[in-house]
Amino acid sequence: MNFNEELKKRTDEAQDIVLDYLPKAGKYDGELVEAMNYSVGAGGKRLRPLLMMSFNRLYGGDGVSIRPFMAAMEMLHTYSLVHDDLPAIDNDDYRRGEYTTHKRFGEAAAILAGDGLLHHAYETAFKAFELCSDKDAVIRALLIFGDKTGINGMLGGQAADVINTGKRIDDGLMYYIYEKKTGALIEGSMMIGAALAGASDDDLETIRRIGADIGMAFQIRDDILDVTGDESVIGKPKGSDERNNKKTYVSVNGLKKAQEDAEEYSSEARRLLEGLGVNDGERAFIGELFNYLCSRDK
Amino acid sequence: MNFNEELKKRTDEAQDIVLDYLPKAGKYDGELVEAMNYSVGAGGKRLRPLLMMSFNRLYGGDGVSIRPFMAAMEMLHTYSLVHDDLPAIDNDDYRRGEYTTHKRFGEAAAILAGDGLLHHAYETAFKAFELCSDKDAVIRALLIFGDKTGINGMLGGQAADVINTGKRIDDGLMYYIYEKKTGALIEGSMMIGAALAGASDDDLETIRRIGADIGMAFQIRDDILDVTGDESVIGKPKGSDERNNKKTYVSVNGLKKAQEDAEEYSSEARRLLEGLGVNDGERAFIGELFNYLCSRDK
Repeated sequence: MNFNEELKKRTDEAQDIVLDYLPKAGKYDGELVEAMNYSVGAGGKRLRPLLMMSFNRLYGGDGVSIRPFMAAMEMLHTYSLVHDDLPAIDNDDYRRGEYTTHKRFGEAAAILAGDGLLHHAYETAFKAFELCSDKDAVIRALLIFGDKTGINGMLGGQAADVINTGKRIDDGLMYYIYEKKTGALIEGSMMIGAALAGASDDDLETIRRIGADIGMAFQIRDDILDVTGDESVIGKPKGSDERNNKKTYVSVNGLKKAQEDAEEYSSEARRLLEGLGVNDGERAFIGELFNYLCSRDK
Repeated sequence: MNFNEELKKRTDEAQDIVLDYLPKAGKYDGELVEAMNYSVGAGGKRLRPLLMMSFNRLYGGDGVSIRPFMAAMEMLHTYSLVHDDLPAIDNDDYRRGEYTTHKRFGEAAAILAGDGLLHHAYETAFKAFELCSDKDAVIRALLIFGDKTGINGMLGGQAADVINTGKRIDDGLMYYIYEKKTGALIEGSMMIGAALAGASDDDLETIRRIGADIGMAFQIRDDILDVTGDESVIGKPKGSDERNNKKTYVSVNGLKKAQEDAEEYSSEARRLLEGLGVNDGERAFIGELFNYLCSRDK
């Protein structure tokens, strides 16, 4: 199977796992559950659960007890998008080619659906205790999940981004936002996959650095696509960074250097990956995935 | 020490514990942390952590490993108020006599501060693993925390309330909203306190019923205070339920029957409490607290 076929197969697999953990509607919570499931169902690359599964396999994990964490991370990522799109924040009408949650269900329902996904992400992660006899490993994964998603992780970057919108920001702050808002969930996904399969603390630190590099490469590629992308492929209007007068890696460094640096970050991540873990085939797949992420067209 | 002095002492103690677990501002997240701490610092009865501590003592708990959960529950409760007050939901300008978070910091910051408190609540609860050698007990408490706060608990009730605002609702839905939106965090607080001190599953089910009764008594008293309360004491304008055309226990049953029923719920809770736990003095305090909750003036 070539890389593209393998990627498609794994994306579908991650998709099934995520959908499997979505809540079912009860008598009185139908609209909340519908809005939550709409947001998650609207698609996306499922990159974070896919990375989590790969790093679990890289360390010989069974690929089963990781499933609740895969779904939890995607719910967490989706909640952050739902709240980011709200009128008081980015005020976006479209996401992945579909109406954003507040355009479809109204603002109050979108706030609550985002909250619901964050609550449900944690409740879903807790299901790993039922699937994994090594409770210490699950606790270790939970601590990473909390750290990388919360105010010292994704949410901290998101808040720094929102609070400084329209202000002059220095390069340090721009890197902080990239590292936290985009990088943290990618780092966390890789680390949780490896931690649940018993990776050492030293390896987890190397994986964190790999995640940070891939987060940078991924975000720089996003900035490039906002300038050069095909709207019908990326599923949202392009040029939004320029319209919002937003400082990005591209506006600071230009398109050419941005693409070179994305490839450099990806290449550094592949270097750090050498010799990690126990599964050679999986390591090769992850290397190809890193290549793909800094050249993708959506 | 009489009951009022003891209540004041314990409220102050709960307050100190909650504030102790608030985040400290870093280089780039000052405004987020400030908005989070403003919301929690604005006061309140600290009822949920207080109940949690009492049920921990009732079962002979050490009162130490419960602290992260006390702070986590109050952060969770505060996040729900911050989002509830938002313009798209209740659009309230005042809470506990102070500006609501969005009036003070703007809508985007209030959405993110609420999110931050929900993230930080979980991260804080995880700190119980450092304080308690019995990891299974902490896991048991975490599962209760997830269940009682999320879409099958508080948030489910909150969503049912918001989505049905302005619509005709039947009595079943009104009870569902009371049970989930108010009752669930009170049930959860009592259950977590007892669970961390090793209460049996049977006892936890009795405590859940006690919490449900006290949740009803507490919410009915809230409805009564919205009609009869002193604005300078309750810290917000009264009459908001009538203005919002909201079905409440008082509008359905009248003031007199509402007060009788609040006392009846409280009395049923005291009956269920008889013989529970190992600490007689604590049981007596809890009984007095239940009395107080259905006659309080704020």
